[in-house]
Amino acid sequence: MTNPILPVAQAARAAAARLARADRPSKDAALGAAAASLRARREEILAANAADLAAAPDLSGAFRDRLTLNAARVEAMAQGLEEIAALPDPAGRVLAEWTRPNGLVIRRVAQPLGVIGMIYESRPNVTADAAGLCLKAGSAVLLRGGSEGARSAAAIHVCIADGLRAAGLPEAAVQMAPTQDRAFVGAMLGAAGLIDLIIPRGGKGLVTRVMQEARVPVLAHAEGLNHTYVHAAADHAMARAVLVNAKMRRTGVCGATETLLIDAAIAPALLPLLVQDLRALGCDFRADARARAILPELAPATEDDFATEWLDAMLSIAVVDGVEEALAHIRRHGSEHTEAIITGDAAVAQAFLDGLASAVGLWNASTQFCDGGEFGFGAEIGIATGRMHARGPVGLEQLCTYRYQVLGAGQTRP
Amino acid sequence: MTNPILPVAQAARAAAARLARADRPSKDAALGAAAASLRARREEILAANAADLAAAPDLSGAFRDRLTLNAARVEAMAQGLEEIAALPDPAGRVLAEWTRPNGLVIRRVAQPLGVIGMIYESRPNVTADAAGLCLKAGSAVLLRGGSEGARSAAAIHVCIADGLRAAGLPEAAVQMAPTQDRAFVGAMLGAAGLIDLIIPRGGKGLVTRVMQEARVPVLAHAEGLNHTYVHAAADHAMARAVLVNAKMRRTGVCGATETLLIDAAIAPALLPLLVQDLRALGCDFRADARARAILPELAPATEDDFATEWLDAMLSIAVVDGVEEALAHIRRHGSEHTEAIITGDAAVAQAFLDGLASAVGLWNASTQFCDGGEFGFGAEIGIATGRMHARGPVGLEQLCTYRYQVLGAGQTRP
Repeated sequence: MTNPILPVAQAARAAAARLARADRPSKDAALGAAAASLRARREEILAANAADLAAAPDLSGAFRDRLTLNAARVEAMAQGLEEIAALPDPAGRVLAEWTRPNGLVIRRVAQPLGVIGMIYESRPNVTADAAGLCLKAGSAVLLRGGSEGARSAAAIHVCIADGLRAAGLPEAAVQMAPTQDRAFVGAMLGAAGLIDLIIPRGGKGLVTRVMQEARVPVLAHAEGLNHTYVHAAADHAMARAVLVNAKMRRTGVCGATETLLIDAAIAPALLPLLVQDLRALGCDFRADARARAILPELAPATEDDFATEWLDAMLSIAVVDGVEEALAHIRRHGSEHTEAIITGDAAVAQAFLDGLASAVGLWNASTQFCDGGEFGFGAEIGIATGRMHARGPVGLEQLCTYRYQVLGAGQTRP
Repeated sequence: MTNPILPVAQAARAAAARLARADRPSKDAALGAAAASLRARREEILAANAADLAAAPDLSGAFRDRLTLNAARVEAMAQGLEEIAALPDPAGRVLAEWTRPNGLVIRRVAQPLGVIGMIYESRPNVTADAAGLCLKAGSAVLLRGGSEGARSAAAIHVCIADGLRAAGLPEAAVQMAPTQDRAFVGAMLGAAGLIDLIIPRGGKGLVTRVMQEARVPVLAHAEGLNHTYVHAAADHAMARAVLVNAKMRRTGVCGATETLLIDAAIAPALLPLLVQDLRALGCDFRADARARAILPELAPATEDDFATEWLDAMLSIAVVDGVEEALAHIRRHGSEHTEAIITGDAAVAQAFLDGLASAVGLWNASTQFCDGGEFGFGAEIGIATGRMHARGPVGLEQLCTYRYQVLGAGQTRP
């Protein structure tokens, strides 16, 4: 049997080679024309989306909401593409340059990754966002969305293709998987040498499958088991404001705080206030014995609770004795995503930040700032929790690799 | 059955956490003490090496030479460790820093990778080099060398452990595989979450196995099918000197040129001189029809020849019509390692460099400059030919990842 990925990936590689050499005006023109096409074809897109929704009457409310498009959401996709067009071109930037004693000038230059495989679930906007980011980063992308949103994704893809055509760029730079067959996902994951990078975006089940099966490098978001550590020298008002935001601004995002660590010295005075603030917003708690000695009404936490990413209005609480114990708790239970310390002591803050292995450490700020937009990346394709290539928010710069350009005058190596 | 990697990897992870926070003086002290121990234990090491050689009387000459140690080679290992100690600390460098409109200061900071698994063959010096580089980069390393050199590697490892102990660093920061059982290699390759990165170093068989089986990210050197393209505007003398160096300085290194591409406009005058120079040094040729029209005595090249990494005194030759045809040939047959153009035309040179996807592109210089030492990295653990994380020579900087440190004043996310 022929590998079903082969014709698709070969077209993608040829398109990637052209796209890697495309100048910024053509890429931006494609993005602008795709945005215009999204607006022009709005009714087609909404009709496709209605058909998707009609074909899946048993979807849960949250899932249905993610799948649903309306005029405002189509406009948001169009604006998203225009915002990506306004961002600087990440490819071709000179990242470093130095001269060797023999006169060779060595430049490290940002370069498009090549062919990216995007595997996602039902959100139709991922089709537009991922296509736009990969295009601007100079890489071809193969999109494989969930079957529930296939009609919507196809309608959006038509607009992207319109944009590429209008700018004279190869349509194969953005392709949809030609089949919803699950075996095709397997073929994508096994396509080492054809696809350069797989980015999964969706629930834990999807991401885990991709990470376990892929033979292609993966940039993935595994888990955000994030801690906010309130140090003894924390300003009480700041700790209260930041923790409420870190836990309750949105409980389902990957940057939400899941565990509060609080110094024993400050806990008797401050913990009741923190709990009161959060409880008023509907938050529940799982607390260790030391926290329950202060607030006996809190439910007891098990070891498992400290290893649970709640993604909900629930907070694990542990009382610790100083920064080293906080770091040890984080090393034991955390997922190396995002941690924050609240303290007025700069030396303690630096010790905490330096002691972390996590992708993002914050001093006196909410863990919910872990986001490409908040970092100033303009747009992000996701958050990476691995250690290789890129960590934290993945924007256009992180979607690039690099190469060296070495300028000589006839040098030979001794 | 328990995973045999578990106790080793857990000790390595604990050591990595300590090493990541070790300051430069302790790491350099460990390297210096290990170098002193290599000198002090020279006779032990040479005796272990003699036992390795005696146990493998049937080794081929080249393999035997790679395995053999003598006083000078032990001294070279000791000096190698001292040179690594003299290099700047790659961890903790601030790679970028910016301030957001809300006042958050965001710093991207270099961070040790964690636990590195090194899988290599018979060269005993890899034990010292890899241990030294990983230690300086703040990562723990698990070394699994070939069975033929096991006694030599163990004797060298004793010296590294001496160094770690002398500096008060955990000995588990540098561990040898506890068994030569091949299943242990499989366990290393499958140790996702325990080992952060696998670096294979050895022949194509080893590297291919590692790349196919690993569930852990791999930084590997696959193949160096490198091209030197002599453009119509090349200086003849420069082209001759650079090509001789690129092909014949050392034919077995990964930066050696394997294929000459030469413009049709210059080939009748220059190709006979290039061939004459190389032939005088013992080089043989496989040429396409257009080259054979100029030099009919050259052996004809097949398609396969252009896809062959000779690693020997053999050169494939193709005549092309300009830079685009050269780039197309490289895209079709190359391995994205290292390519050079020889030309006096700066615009053509830039078009060539920009059109490459290869890790290293050179203008008017020998492809044999693809080397960490020549790039100024001080030392390299290998060359990477993939697209993720690091490309080209892998030195201390490339052995690091990064994280973000975000400094706030109580900011919450709207």
